[in-house]
Amino acid sequence: MNRYSQVLDAVRKKKPLVLQITNTVTVNDCANITICFGASPVMSDDPDDAAELAGRADSLLLNIGTVNAKQIEIMHSAADSAEDSAIPIVLDPVGAGASAFRRETVCGFMKKYQLSVIRGNAGELHSLTGRDACVRGVESDESADLSLCAALALESGAAVAASGAADLVTDGKSAVEIANGIPMMGKICGTGCMAGSTAASAAAVASPFDAAVFSHCALGIAGEKASLYAKGPGTFKQALFDEVFSLTAADIETYAKIREVKV
Amino acid sequence: MNRYSQVLDAVRKKKPLVLQITNTVTVNDCANITICFGASPVMSDDPDDAAELAGRADSLLLNIGTVNAKQIEIMHSAADSAEDSAIPIVLDPVGAGASAFRRETVCGFMKKYQLSVIRGNAGELHSLTGRDACVRGVESDESADLSLCAALALESGAAVAASGAADLVTDGKSAVEIANGIPMMGKICGTGCMAGSTAASAAAVASPFDAAVFSHCALGIAGEKASLYAKGPGTFKQALFDEVFSLTAADIETYAKIREVKV
Amino acid sequence: MNRYSQVLDAVRKKKPLVLQITNTVTVNDCANITICFGASPVMSDDPDDAAELAGRADSLLLNIGTVNAKQIEIMHSAADSAEDSAIPIVLDPVGAGASAFRRETVCGFMKKYQLSVIRGNAGELHSLTGRDACVRGVESDESADLSLCAALALESGAAVAASGAADLVTDGKSAVEIANGIPMMGKICGTGCMAGSTAASAAAVASPFDAAVFSHCALGIAGEKASLYAKGPGTFKQALFDEVFSLTAADIETYAKIREVKV
Repeated sequence: MNRYSQVLDAVRKKKPLVLQITNTVTVNDCANITICFGASPVMSDDPDDAAELAGRADSLLLNIGTVNAKQIEIMHSAADSAEDSAIPIVLDPVGAGASAFRRETVCGFMKKYQLSVIRGNAGELHSLTGRDACVRGVESDESADLSLCAALALESGAAVAASGAADLVTDGKSAVEIANGIPMMGKICGTGCMAGSTAASAAAVASPFDAAVFSHCALGIAGEKASLYAKGPGTFKQALFDEVFSLTAADIETYAKIREVKV
Repeated sequence: MNRYSQVLDAVRKKKPLVLQITNTVTVNDCANITICFGASPVMSDDPDDAAELAGRADSLLLNIGTVNAKQIEIMHSAADSAEDSAIPIVLDPVGAGASAFRRETVCGFMKKYQLSVIRGNAGELHSLTGRDACVRGVESDESADLSLCAALALESGAAVAASGAADLVTDGKSAVEIANGIPMMGKICGTGCMAGSTAASAAAVASPFDAAVFSHCALGIAGEKASLYAKGPGTFKQALFDEVFSLTAADIETYAKIREVKV
Repeated sequence: MNRYSQVLDAVRKKKPLVLQITNTVTVNDCANITICFGASPVMSDDPDDAAELAGRADSLLLNIGTVNAKQIEIMHSAADSAEDSAIPIVLDPVGAGASAFRRETVCGFMKKYQLSVIRGNAGELHSLTGRDACVRGVESDESADLSLCAALALESGAAVAASGAADLVTDGKSAVEIANGIPMMGKICGTGCMAGSTAASAAAVASPFDAAVFSHCALGIAGEKASLYAKGPGTFKQALFDEVFSLTAADIETYAKIREVKV
């Protein structure tokens, strides 16, 4: 087993409890993908509840896809508790390029907490580096700029994962490119959010860098397998859950397309 | 190509950004159907965020399926911004016949904003005309009354679309009946909401009337195709997404069952 | 027909309106399973709206999966109205073992309202009896303890239903064990919540005890049928909806595995 394939077995063995403060659009997909990978999801919409759950959880996911002032308070309550328990925090800055409100929310988290992984698309991540990313919604057709992602990693101390035609993960010093995945994954709502939930599940058993690489590689391989027989986005999404559930460490060793790139 | 089939190609070419302030029950279906038609969905749950996103979006959907005081504020914030940007606003008055709270919310929108499309079932639309519709929930078995819908269209200045055994669209002067669709569409939660999202996507590239007709016709045809092989409501819903994704302008020309009716 | 199989036909004949104040994670599944069984779901996120809807509904479901202070207010508003209308109230104490906040919320409902059915997993129900259940999330691997469930039933006056490897239903005096269902049902998010929605649908036409037994038996049989051809959790969930939709009273008579157990 290599360092990424063994993450899958480690998640299934530990069955980490992953607290997810996330958006209302893809929350069901996030819960189901977490179960399919062998982890256990729990969601919360109250500050006290979230703080208590974070104290028992193995990792925390913050996803700002439908964030508001009340949810920011819940996220801070959960993250304070997560820091006390020294569990990893994964941030998915959904739509960070699309509004000042979202960008400022993300900057608030980056300043206050040591994040383990920041995972988004190119537009979202670029907008966090001060570059005007011109992102209109929550999608982005840009390819991630490695030097911008590396700068964000060095500034934040987090592993930065950018999804795109090829996915990139960097900690600012080293970087890998992951060529797994297929275009159909961009035709269903939620693959990015699922990658965040998966990274949070994996961060409970692996380094932030390895968790981020594993997440995009494993989901990408499952997507490739699902695309062999799915008829369109509806059946593809269900097939993706099936394939993640039956994914093996051997699949990851056989099908992973990961290569180191120079930062 | 006819005026309705070309709406499909126009949506896919422009890929409009559709801001959707909607309910928590069907929000994932709304996002996915928007992507399947070729548009780009973005959701928001904060007044400032929604106003900023509306300023960049191509159309706005308001769906009151789980509306509350806070969300009404968000909807007004988004709609104010939408009016400033002169983008179309589509309203789906889910359950308007079922509570005074919902009816008053809808009336508040109708008084304040020039809506492009009002889309609901017979019970919801009848209740907006002052007729006691005796609607117990969010479903309605009534057939829409054309003269009531036409009166609502004239009063509101919006195209009014009523889903039912046959769907009706009217601007108060002319009207069409759309016979596409199958009963199975009423056996899954969300087909009405999806029609609202689709009308909002189409309203970014077509007149309110044409957008409303296109929405019900295109979803109906996709439903007819999906029903040929789906086993029940679960597999039907996924097949519906697949069929919308692969729907062509030629399908709409071949299968549309649209006829003019006298107001 | 036996007393459980006839519940299915009674639901389909009456088509009860089931008001559901529930979590954002599985709300879409709850709506769809309600429709598949032949009932009519309506959701609400506002106190006035919920009170008015409860006055017209045939039963009320309270599910605390993502409960917060605001939703507690909505639940109390709905439950006050439900008591005025004398309709049954079904409570699903999701994650009650996982935080003091959830446990106290549930205790507040139990003190104030005469609940018809309390439905949860072993960990959730045990935590309500004062036993330290050591539940970390919303899942529980424990088997339900019949004497604890019976004590909870006597204290609350509700039928208590515990899902697990075998499901238990008791009113404190008599009890049954239901051996229907398969492990795959634990691999999708929402089967527990769906059982709550189904119990609420059935409580509109049957006694609390029979409604609880029916819910777990009928969902279990549908799950057994779905598992014969589903490939994994994604396709299983859609097959479950299909099988519930086509389930017949004869299926329940043929496949039910219900046996009385001594309290």
